[in-house]
Amino acid sequence: MSPYLALDFGGTRSRAALLDDDMRLIRRAEMRSRVSDGPDAVLHRLVKLAKSVTDAAVAPATIGIAAPGPLDTKAGLIIKAETLPGWSQVPIAAALSDAFAGVPAFVENDANLGALAEYHLGAGQGADPLIYLTISTGIGGGAIIGGEIFSGAGGHAIEPGHMRLTLPDGSIRRLEELASGTALGNSARHRLTRGAKPSILREMDRIDGQAVGEAALAGDALALDCVREAGTWLGMGLVNLMHLFNPAAIILGGSVMKLGDLFLGPARKFIAEHILYEGFVPDNVLRPAKLGDDVCLVGAALHARHSLAL
Amino acid sequence: MSPYLALDFGGTRSRAALLDDDMRLIRRAEMRSRVSDGPDAVLHRLVKLAKSVTDAAVAPATIGIAAPGPLDTKAGLIIKAETLPGWSQVPIAAALSDAFAGVPAFVENDANLGALAEYHLGAGQGADPLIYLTISTGIGGGAIIGGEIFSGAGGHAIEPGHMRLTLPDGSIRRLEELASGTALGNSARHRLTRGAKPSILREMDRIDGQAVGEAALAGDALALDCVREAGTWLGMGLVNLMHLFNPAAIILGGSVMKLGDLFLGPARKFIAEHILYEGFVPDNVLRPAKLGDDVCLVGAALHARHSLAL
Repeated sequence: MSPYLALDFGGTRSRAALLDDDMRLIRRAEMRSRVSDGPDAVLHRLVKLAKSVTDAAVAPATIGIAAPGPLDTKAGLIIKAETLPGWSQVPIAAALSDAFAGVPAFVENDANLGALAEYHLGAGQGADPLIYLTISTGIGGGAIIGGEIFSGAGGHAIEPGHMRLTLPDGSIRRLEELASGTALGNSARHRLTRGAKPSILREMDRIDGQAVGEAALAGDALALDCVREAGTWLGMGLVNLMHLFNPAAIILGGSVMKLGDLFLGPARKFIAEHILYEGFVPDNVLRPAKLGDDVCLVGAALHARHSLAL
Repeated sequence: MSPYLALDFGGTRSRAALLDDDMRLIRRAEMRSRVSDGPDAVLHRLVKLAKSVTDAAVAPATIGIAAPGPLDTKAGLIIKAETLPGWSQVPIAAALSDAFAGVPAFVENDANLGALAEYHLGAGQGADPLIYLTISTGIGGGAIIGGEIFSGAGGHAIEPGHMRLTLPDGSIRRLEELASGTALGNSARHRLTRGAKPSILREMDRIDGQAVGEAALAGDALALDCVREAGTWLGMGLVNLMHLFNPAAIILGGSVMKLGDLFLGPARKFIAEHILYEGFVPDNVLRPAKLGDDVCLVGAALHARHSLAL
């Protein structure tokens, strides 16, 4: 069988891989995206990256592309993205297909592809509906319903990071402003400025999600407060997802999940206190993601293979 | 063709109807449910109500039953319900089927059937995904995805009224505590007690959602404040539904919708301010329900006919 080419194009880094029929990575390459260079230069570099993992003598069967949304998946376009300033209606699928002599190329939202990969080969096998959340700088998400990517009427679902919640001061925030790595950094800076609680973070130059996470893992009380607060907000997001989708599994990935029960414990507590009834919390509904950093490459290859077969 | 029998069993009132093949009501009857009499007495009365709309000589083709959740739809049981204190594992489908010599009976969540009816014959024809909200004492909801009722892994989806939101004082509330008829009554009583704003409601014995709604329609400023506040919370709920389901249509029914733009205007304003991008707000996405009080009877008949054909 011909191998499958997959690309994961992100605002910061991009990856390419060649996968075999069992969706194992045969070859893999990575680069900085440098999106500020503009679409033409970036597409050129993406093609070079893709060529670096393929064998010139063996055309891939399909090209799967993971990209940040919003996308026009039918036309293969990146419409725009918060992480891609100035990009508009960029024909990423055609650019890759053309570079590989017309091999069919399919673009899909990166978090949707993460959901698909975890559903077929990761922590959520057979779990339907499945919700996938990736919690790092922001919070992305995807859903599988009836075995297929669920993308709603216009292809824009699901965006759980953009769920609106109200703070105690009355201001309105997105879930990803309250329960992401960015939230951990913001919360710590706020606590360091407003309070006098001792913390190893006071000696650090850069207070970001990673620094707060490491401090929490080292037992720093102020950092632990931040993680507990973010985990509680995550719990509210999860309760809302459970009441709306009644998922068989919610797969949790992304760098913030390295905090484990420090982060998930408060979320579980919130769920126990606020869920309507136990039918909304099937056994083992919250599961750590299994496929790691290459989840979107696997999802892109799976999706392209499936799309070609349709 | 044999006609279809439908029942809509509610905590306060129950309805029965006989419908023809075009889902038009041939005959209809209604009664108070008096659920505190217990399941046996109530099931007995439901059978009598059903008999009152059917012709003894012509067996119905199917029996469709709308009931409050949670249900075990496969076994035809009401598991329990907030509005049915003391009810547990009540075999409502078997009770009706037995009374009609084994005619197949199917029970489904009432709001899910409302969604199905509006999707096939009401305001949401062809709109997929479709979300249906019924906003009266509480907020119920249903979803249609891929032309079918979406009920999640355990049959419990969707419960938009149980979406958790935080008040400015830090307390956590359900959407239905903030944007329903009950919310209007609570909000008005709070404002009447805490403030001195003049209001026609001050002369009323009973300050409930209906009284507040009528006062708002008559131009009462305090009542209008309550409606505006509830409409804003509804907007937050709708934004979250849009970001999660990207629905082609959200159909809004229930008694509070009689307030029209007084209620929906603030919701629309919130959506315009908080939606991620315009792809989440397709043309005509918010639509008033069309099928009125009999929506669940129509949905129950449709669902039973469809279930028999499977």
